[in-house]
Amino acid sequence: MGTLRELGEFEVIRRLTAARDEAARALAPAGVVVDSGDDAAVLAPAPGMDLVVTTDALVAGAHFLPGWCPPRRAGGRLARANLSDLAAMAAVPRWALLSIGARAESAVEDLLEFQSGLAGALAAAGAALVGGNLTAVTGPEWYSLVLLGECPRGGAWRRAGARPGDLVAVTGHPGRAGAGARLARALDREARAPEWAPLIAAWTDPPLRVPLALALRASGAVTAAIDVSDGFAGDLAHLCEAGGLGAEVEEAAWPADEPLERAARALGAAPGALRFGPSDDYELLLALDPAGRPAAERAAAAAGVPLAVVGRFTAGPSRPALRARDGVVVPLGAGYDHFGS
Amino acid sequence: MGTLRELGEFEVIRRLTAARDEAARALAPAGVVVDSGDDAAVLAPAPGMDLVVTTDALVAGAHFLPGWCPPRRAGGRLARANLSDLAAMAAVPRWALLSIGARAESAVEDLLEFQSGLAGALAAAGAALVGGNLTAVTGPEWYSLVLLGECPRGGAWRRAGARPGDLVAVTGHPGRAGAGARLARALDREARAPEWAPLIAAWTDPPLRVPLALALRASGAVTAAIDVSDGFAGDLAHLCEAGGLGAEVEEAAWPADEPLERAARALGAAPGALRFGPSDDYELLLALDPAGRPAAERAAAAAGVPLAVVGRFTAGPSRPALRARDGVVVPLGAGYDHFGS
Repeated sequence: MGTLRELGEFEVIRRLTAARDEAARALAPAGVVVDSGDDAAVLAPAPGMDLVVTTDALVAGAHFLPGWCPPRRAGGRLARANLSDLAAMAAVPRWALLSIGARAESAVEDLLEFQSGLAGALAAAGAALVGGNLTAVTGPEWYSLVLLGECPRGGAWRRAGARPGDLVAVTGHPGRAGAGARLARALDREARAPEWAPLIAAWTDPPLRVPLALALRASGAVTAAIDVSDGFAGDLAHLCEAGGLGAEVEEAAWPADEPLERAARALGAAPGALRFGPSDDYELLLALDPAGRPAAERAAAAAGVPLAVVGRFTAGPSRPALRARDGVVVPLGAGYDHFGS
Repeated sequence: MGTLRELGEFEVIRRLTAARDEAARALAPAGVVVDSGDDAAVLAPAPGMDLVVTTDALVAGAHFLPGWCPPRRAGGRLARANLSDLAAMAAVPRWALLSIGARAESAVEDLLEFQSGLAGALAAAGAALVGGNLTAVTGPEWYSLVLLGECPRGGAWRRAGARPGDLVAVTGHPGRAGAGARLARALDREARAPEWAPLIAAWTDPPLRVPLALALRASGAVTAAIDVSDGFAGDLAHLCEAGGLGAEVEEAAWPADEPLERAARALGAAPGALRFGPSDDYELLLALDPAGRPAAERAAAAAGVPLAVVGRFTAGPSRPALRARDGVVVPLGAGYDHFGS
């Protein structure tokens, strides 16, 4: 199909826009007054709703390895990263804009695949791609998405809001995404073996937690929320900091995660370092009112999403702690620093 | 103040957020329910308004040369580029999110300066920075802004809407920004001479056309609009294409632009190539109802912005044409392809 240099900027934008329009027509998104082909998108927010806005970016080679994450999957991953932020606010995803920094020698087909994977993952959550920007880069390619959603006025979940005694709950299998990324780098092609599939998938195809978040919002059980994008320990520390609290996590309360434990052996790492350490799992980390626990567990079961209650918030402020199986209480590790060496 | 690697991601984000919060507090922006420090920003759109959303990016070395455009000015330039899109829709700027791809060896001071220049330029237009994202890159640094604005429901200007007989009008001095960029590259430090200042300034400090756009919207004279970011000829072609029209531009109707003509001589270029060719001037290119011309000219005079009526839209669709001083009609040149070699 040709490189960006061969086709030229306007033709590339024309093809991206035509594909986006086609996808949007199939979705027939509400509230889109003007989409592509003008200086800006025009949207009609629903009356009486708050607007919830987030932005997250992917850089080739850093957030995804092209060999493990072809363009369509990388696009889906960027959508899921942003959708995860809206899930953590209990907002309904509506509209998105994609800003691309592309290399002149890239194939337009790869850009179209990326956009298609992105638009598909957005559509699965009810959101439409309504605009964007394309610019030329000479370094690694990057993709920055802005996602807009809505929630009832004043109804967004916050990082602050938990009280001492509220439960620490988490969806899915924290640590698997980080373990998958480490396996891919350490084992190279051997990481493609079926035994590692759940961990590789957690890294390349993060989960969509929006439906569960909306069901949980209806339950009224959630008092604070964040998504796990720095790792369980780091994001729990963010929740504690925002709420002026501490937290004690019970090692014994965690369900077994056999693939994660196998990965720890293969990587020569402690299972806890994988579970609690740097990992962009895009799971929900929640503070639950103890009285709402049964309703929250029903909502998770109905959504088919694992939800584990793994500790309690405590009076603080203090850093989260881990009560190990032997009863010893130790500080829970730190998050992921993207600039650290 | 240290590099990003020395300080670490969370400390850099903390400093950026603290500076942003301070600037926002001074501005006391309306409609901000939750700003920084959560998974997403929460905003309260005004009732009955459409939301107008645009995104534009800057890449170091491509869109700005660090030697010519220190971080504070580069930040202002990114704000102005996005504000220009909202001006072209006649929208009131409200909120923005900044996504940064930064190098680990960069100084946090430079990021803070960039953000400060950006927030200052947004504040001058009534908009506040309410969120963002920071990611690590190994290639040239990039900055992608999303800007949200509001306009009365259905009131946004469109690229389509001009009718045959409507006037082609343009603000400011098209071509100067592109000429400034070419002078900086061709003359290096000699381009810092005072005689080139108006052209260099057009490139590094683009104008703010939001106040004029809002005054013109009130005049009711504008039937279609676009901002000049590809060059006058390219953007006039976009207007014609959107409206299914042609346009004839009169060379004799253009006011003299002495600095531009001097630059053409220094660069060995035709003045028309500079005036009509690739140039991100961020000026407004408008279709005016002839009956509204006096009102539009009054609004421009009141705003202190040059507004030149330089041609007419014609039945089409066809590419824009130029009637030269000798009466010969020739096609007007093409726009700027960022991937072209």
